[in-house]
Amino acid sequence: MRKKLFVLALFVCAGVSLFAQETAEALGFSLDVVWLFIGAILVFIMQAGFALVETGLTRAKNATNITMKNVMDFCFGAIVYWAIGWGLMYGKDALGGLIGSDQFFHSPMGLDMESGNFYKSWFFQVVFAATAATIVSGAMAERTQFRSYLIYTCFISAFIYPISGHWIWNADGWLAQLGFHDFAGSTVVHSVGGWAALMGAVVLGPRLGKYVKGADGKISVKAFPGHNIPYAALGVLLLFFGWFGFNGASTGIATVGGGGIWSGLNIARVCVTTTLAAAAGAVAAMIFSWLWFKKPDASMTLNGLLAGLVGITAPCAVVSPGAAIAIGLIAGVLVVLSVEFFDKVVKVDDPVGAVSVHGICGVFGTIAVGIWGDAAGDGVSGLLHGGGFDQLGKQLIGIVSVGAWALITSFILFTVIKLIFGLRVSPKEELVGLDLSEHKSEAYSGFQIFSNM
Amino acid sequence: MRKKLFVLALFVCAGVSLFAQETAEALGFSLDVVWLFIGAILVFIMQAGFALVETGLTRAKNATNITMKNVMDFCFGAIVYWAIGWGLMYGKDALGGLIGSDQFFHSPMGLDMESGNFYKSWFFQVVFAATAATIVSGAMAERTQFRSYLIYTCFISAFIYPISGHWIWNADGWLAQLGFHDFAGSTVVHSVGGWAALMGAVVLGPRLGKYVKGADGKISVKAFPGHNIPYAALGVLLLFFGWFGFNGASTGIATVGGGGIWSGLNIARVCVTTTLAAAAGAVAAMIFSWLWFKKPDASMTLNGLLAGLVGITAPCAVVSPGAAIAIGLIAGVLVVLSVEFFDKVVKVDDPVGAVSVHGICGVFGTIAVGIWGDAAGDGVSGLLHGGGFDQLGKQLIGIVSVGAWALITSFILFTVIKLIFGLRVSPKEELVGLDLSEHKSEAYSGFQIFSNM
Amino acid sequence: MRKKLFVLALFVCAGVSLFAQETAEALGFSLDVVWLFIGAILVFIMQAGFALVETGLTRAKNATNITMKNVMDFCFGAIVYWAIGWGLMYGKDALGGLIGSDQFFHSPMGLDMESGNFYKSWFFQVVFAATAATIVSGAMAERTQFRSYLIYTCFISAFIYPISGHWIWNADGWLAQLGFHDFAGSTVVHSVGGWAALMGAVVLGPRLGKYVKGADGKISVKAFPGHNIPYAALGVLLLFFGWFGFNGASTGIATVGGGGIWSGLNIARVCVTTTLAAAAGAVAAMIFSWLWFKKPDASMTLNGLLAGLVGITAPCAVVSPGAAIAIGLIAGVLVVLSVEFFDKVVKVDDPVGAVSVHGICGVFGTIAVGIWGDAAGDGVSGLLHGGGFDQLGKQLIGIVSVGAWALITSFILFTVIKLIFGLRVSPKEELVGLDLSEHKSEAYSGFQIFSNM
Repeated sequence: MRKKLFVLALFVCAGVSLFAQETAEALGFSLDVVWLFIGAILVFIMQAGFALVETGLTRAKNATNITMKNVMDFCFGAIVYWAIGWGLMYGKDALGGLIGSDQFFHSPMGLDMESGNFYKSWFFQVVFAATAATIVSGAMAERTQFRSYLIYTCFISAFIYPISGHWIWNADGWLAQLGFHDFAGSTVVHSVGGWAALMGAVVLGPRLGKYVKGADGKISVKAFPGHNIPYAALGVLLLFFGWFGFNGASTGIATVGGGGIWSGLNIARVCVTTTLAAAAGAVAAMIFSWLWFKKPDASMTLNGLLAGLVGITAPCAVVSPGAAIAIGLIAGVLVVLSVEFFDKVVKVDDPVGAVSVHGICGVFGTIAVGIWGDAAGDGVSGLLHGGGFDQLGKQLIGIVSVGAWALITSFILFTVIKLIFGLRVSPKEELVGLDLSEHKSEAYSGFQIFSNM
Repeated sequence: MRKKLFVLALFVCAGVSLFAQETAEALGFSLDVVWLFIGAILVFIMQAGFALVETGLTRAKNATNITMKNVMDFCFGAIVYWAIGWGLMYGKDALGGLIGSDQFFHSPMGLDMESGNFYKSWFFQVVFAATAATIVSGAMAERTQFRSYLIYTCFISAFIYPISGHWIWNADGWLAQLGFHDFAGSTVVHSVGGWAALMGAVVLGPRLGKYVKGADGKISVKAFPGHNIPYAALGVLLLFFGWFGFNGASTGIATVGGGGIWSGLNIARVCVTTTLAAAAGAVAAMIFSWLWFKKPDASMTLNGLLAGLVGITAPCAVVSPGAAIAIGLIAGVLVVLSVEFFDKVVKVDDPVGAVSVHGICGVFGTIAVGIWGDAAGDGVSGLLHGGGFDQLGKQLIGIVSVGAWALITSFILFTVIKLIFGLRVSPKEELVGLDLSEHKSEAYSGFQIFSNM
Repeated sequence: MRKKLFVLALFVCAGVSLFAQETAEALGFSLDVVWLFIGAILVFIMQAGFALVETGLTRAKNATNITMKNVMDFCFGAIVYWAIGWGLMYGKDALGGLIGSDQFFHSPMGLDMESGNFYKSWFFQVVFAATAATIVSGAMAERTQFRSYLIYTCFISAFIYPISGHWIWNADGWLAQLGFHDFAGSTVVHSVGGWAALMGAVVLGPRLGKYVKGADGKISVKAFPGHNIPYAALGVLLLFFGWFGFNGASTGIATVGGGGIWSGLNIARVCVTTTLAAAAGAVAAMIFSWLWFKKPDASMTLNGLLAGLVGITAPCAVVSPGAAIAIGLIAGVLVVLSVEFFDKVVKVDDPVGAVSVHGICGVFGTIAVGIWGDAAGDGVSGLLHGGGFDQLGKQLIGIVSVGAWALITSFILFTVIKLIFGLRVSPKEELVGLDLSEHKSEAYSGFQIFSNM
């Protein structure tokens, strides 16, 4: 009798403890989802950040057009990323790591509850796709046909971004298999956007009056000052704000196994390095521009902050606070040099410096993993932490292959759009401004605004 | 001896496992609270979104007044919703599902720790109440006395919104009992705000110069272009951002029992459908306005995005991604038609399109539950998913009864305010602008601004 | 045989239940980290709020300079707070509660995983340090040399703020030991910023043309209206938004032991009181300014909202909703009186009212703990809740000692900077505006802007 009671008690006890363990595991899943979605929501507001930076750093006569571009690239992007992009990026791998092959047009009619991964991850992924797409907008500002911009943006969100993304962030992708490390997307997101931005600016050509040949045959470079610096600053702060989701929630999970003090602290490590790199980027760009141009330049400083953020995006989870500051300082100087290089030497007209911020600093951030990486446990050891040139080599392979992919496909895309629809507005429309010529509206009705060219 | 040790061990073991289960349950509660509060904080920032949309789409001479209205309707609303509204909405049911009857002036002096539900839910509810109130502001912009606006906003937050809210969101409310489904408030929040906005605009009459009778007896409709399109776009993006809290945290909980992959994924499902419907709304409104007006109209496109959001608010938890796109596309077209209908045909002057966005699309979203609803497990099956006209009928009952309530009570309210205090500023004050006449300040001191009427 | 099986089963059972308990505890830690980091991210965006409030309430010719100051005080502050401030504030206590003494330049090279507390808390702390620093900017607007501002901001983030912060928020600090209660920083953050702002404004002197001696020997006080009220309103709403992190996440944890309904509800209590106090502050300031100046003044109302927030920051966790309203109402009146007092009587030129909002209302909020405090369980009982003058006395000791510290050190700091580098731009530069004179750029290129002095 007693023995039976013992057995019964033992079973109840075992049941409760198993149930408790199951409850705790379900909770862990819920907590991960909550953190991931908060991260995605933060990344979403970066759309407003990009819109404000681009609007603020360009002329008032194009402000409606720019905000429309930034809103609509997200909207078109979301739909095509649901229809096509997600499947190419996270669908079942095909062709040995090259491309995803299923989950297109997910749940078009009824609720398909089988593929929980789509629900868990799509929202976080779509805001990243939108980021890559919207980067391009800045380099093509003030002269692109609205219709052609929309066509381009559908292609980058549906094809260009997801395919190279598959290589790196799908566990079966060939760069993932190789050991290439890009935690939150210096290469996957930023450099893809930066290279497409470069091709867009090249195929479009510079804004009217940007490069003027003088009587002496020398080309003078004109600067078009932005019409609203507070917009640009607010935009940068919103980007910084959203970046804590961009990098912080790329941990994927809020709960980390293994126990000890690091359980749950990956988020912390990432937020600390992100903050310090951004701060160092702004400080470096400000001081460097002050020394060079004899003034602390606002747009250079703001771009320096963004440069620090782009630079820390790949290595944020595997470097120390001190290394994050080093990465930020270098990115901040680099972006000033790069903006000047493209503007004055190469003479590519990139109104907001998108190529330098996202392309060049995206590459630098990816390299930084191979130099300052200090996470032997995660298999990432850089040059300064005993890993030799091994990780650095893998990083370079990723940079070159993704760069080639983005440059070639976006060049083809822009050239085809140019041939079929035209890419650029007419000179008259450009002078009037795209707000009136493309949208028949003014951004600032009632305000007295001088045309500055 | 050994037996006693066994019994002791068994007790310890049972204790630990029960404690573990209790810890896990307390954690689940904490996680739910965290998610709910994050959601509420996101909804809060929608106040800034509404303020910017309304400011951007109206004239510069009324910008201070508009931001003041939007800040103060939240502030007054919070206090009266604490004093009266909460009790009417979530107090103990009285009159068979019609009204709440206790918890007024909660904890006026000491901390009453008994009613945890007030603390858990009030903050989330107050930001919803403020949303309903602030919707009205847009339709009444540029001509309403500031004092009368404040009086109105106290009444909607204290009485009109909470009472119909009680019917639906208090579990004992009569529409809740009927099986009416409005997940996050297409009807509870948006259509109530929309109908009150309609009555406000009707009782006020149009802005001076809006409808002018020509020599030929025909009435010409003048458009007053907004003075800051980037504000409007930033406002819409902030609303979109906040809407992830509005819809996402209306799950109420982050942890979902039942286990399996859907534990914790309700948030995900809601964010996916919300994103897609908003995107589709903007795309549809842009294309439709492009075809109709020969230009991609910025304010129509932005309203289309909001229309998609309002439309998905009721059904967001019970429809598939594909259905969300369908709902967004329809809402985007609907809002353009509705804006034109009220502006040109009915000749109700609604400066920002609040009636169309929140009233009409709120109704549409509520109907959409009865059409695309696909959550048999939650008792919601729409026309296209085997539910026949059953759910649709319940939805229509809710729409009509809440619509009648909001229209009648707000008509009475505005008429009484008009008779006692006056609702409208003088023609001279309206021409000068409400910033100078109501607040003795300019919004943009130093800027050269032309009067556009 | 059976006995052995029993023993084995018992061991397994015990193991599972212990594991479950451990999982739940790790989860609790993760949830706390998630909430803390979300809170910190919300506090971060207050930087944008401060920037917009200050920009909006000053003149267009200084807008670039103001946004640059606000961005750069965060960037420099983050680096020095990493290098020095964190160690002084949260390092091992030295000198009997006066100062922290280790953890400087944390993890400069490799990842030091030992000190998890740095990772968990630094990010939350750095955004608080930045808040204290940026408060000062407003009072010194429109006339301070950019270089000198940067020097000052490094010193406040590295030394002034962390040392008095150590007294209160380091558990071993002498005011913490005394029983001084400042939940989220009415004194630690706001009044320190407010007092430094006062010294800055005093040492700088008023803006040119602010106080003009007439022919009759009487001094007339000129008001310089802000150039963008919507910026100021958006800034206040962003501050309000971020304040939910400021106060809400100062709970430190999302999970609260002890069980019962209050587990997890501390966040709720804090958000409810924060909302109500802010609302009451705006309402009181609006009505009071309406009665006094015969108009509902926008900038007074917005400052009233902030006054309510500053006032509730110390007591938010220990007072009832009703008390929160009382505190807000008093703060709202107080800030109007204080702004007028400093502007008209003392004649200290504080362009945005930072001294009144953060200094005076910070003091009031700290006192409020000693009056309305109602948390006997946490050892805080105010005058109205049976605690007599005990808590009030402790609060006053904290107010006086921190006030003396901040006033004296910042006076020395500003005076030394003035002697070595100069603190103020030349009269000519001030008239032209700091955008052109300090940054060689215009904030609003293309817009026609009149000089208003």
